Amino acid sequence: MEDRGLLIVLSGPSGVGKGTVRKAIFENHSNNFDYSISMTTRKKREGEVEGVDYFFRTKEEFEKLIEEDGLLEYANYVGNYYGTPMKYVNQTLDQGRDVFLEIEVQGALKVREKMPEAIFIFLSPPNLEELNSRIVNRGTDSDEMIKKRMKKAVEELKLIQYYDYVVENDTVENAARKIRNIIESEHLKVTRNLKEYAHIIEEME
Amino acid sequence: MEDRGLLIVLSGPSGVGKGTVRKAIFENHSNNFDYSISMTTRKKREGEVEGVDYFFRTKEEFEKLIEEDGLLEYANYVGNYYGTPMKYVNQTLDQGRDVFLEIEVQGALKVREKMPEAIFIFLSPPNLEELNSRIVNRGTDSDEMIKKRMKKAVEELKLIQYYDYVVENDTVENAARKIRNIIESEHLKVTRNLKEYAHIIEEME
Repeated sequence: MEDRGLLIVLSGPSGVGKGTVRKAIFENHSNNFDYSISMTTRKKREGEVEGVDYFFRTKEEFEKLIEEDGLLEYANYVGNYYGTPMKYVNQTLDQGRDVFLEIEVQGALKVREKMPEAIFIFLSPPNLEELNSRIVNRGTDSDEMIKKRMKKAVEELKLIQYYDYVVENDTVENAARKIRNIIESEHLKVTRNLKEYAHIIEEME
Repeated sequence: MEDRGLLIVLSGPSGVGKGTVRKAIFENHSNNFDYSISMTTRKKREGEVEGVDYFFRTKEEFEKLIEEDGLLEYANYVGNYYGTPMKYVNQTLDQGRDVFLEIEVQGALKVREKMPEAIFIFLSPPNLEELNSRIVNRGTDSDEMIKKRMKKAVEELKLIQYYDYVVENDTVENAARKIRNIIESEHLKVTRNLKEYAHIIEEME
């Protein structure tokens, strides 16, 4: 039997560029991992395809799934639900394929509780020191606004401690390459290959 | 102050191609890690350079260093000592640079005891199943010889459990690339970056 796949969770502050990096990871590459498609109750936009961009569901269907504990994580943004269907994730992992999630930080914390063995990657804004002084020195914003923005940035950064890896999004190409390397390296860990080697050793003895 | 560098230990069965892979890792690449030059009591061969290929020392000098606990690991092969000078390793790590060791399996186990925080990479022979049948089916060797070779191969493979990563040496290029990726990914671990982020957060608060 093949080993179970890895669950890879990419997350980070809103606006950091998670979606762009995720697309770059999947573009022009044959991957041994599948992107987990989210489920949502928001209206389908022009050009969006069911089962490709999202699984589009009604509010009633979504809430039924919540009750059945059928979601790995979910959240409500501006009146719409967004979530990760548990069934798809588990089926893919059982087939020995990795599953790639790209979700908001709150969702990532919920996944950490349910699946602590997953690999958690935090995408961090580049040039944090610069960002810091830029927020402070921006003359057009009120003191109140600056304070609020700083507080949110700090709160999000503090979540890094719950992650396994931190990747700075300096350029999309760099960040995507680093994330691909992390996934490859995780597969080379002895703990994930011991069973295979034990089998070979047994045959040789 | 800069963080301490990582100690990376590449090891594996004799004859697996450690030296070739190590050379490929260092060739044509600007690395943030230094190769740790071994110390030996064997005679300098033509073309070898002191401080480049080895530190060449007399038996007396080497044994003095053993007494002073100045070696991270050492061994005696066919009458000559080979070892890793502790001082060079620690000085380089303290400067925030990584140190790369390529050593025999017995030496690697000793380093694991002295520096458990190091990253241990096992270079594994390719096509183990094939190797297995090749050893068994090789008609020219006596049963005694086959048994002996198998026993050694199995003993060496069993050491994988003491390592962090296992890399198959299918091609030199592949193995070198994977090892470089492992080192890069290790640097992206949150545990190694938490101090830096804590500092930025403190400034922002």
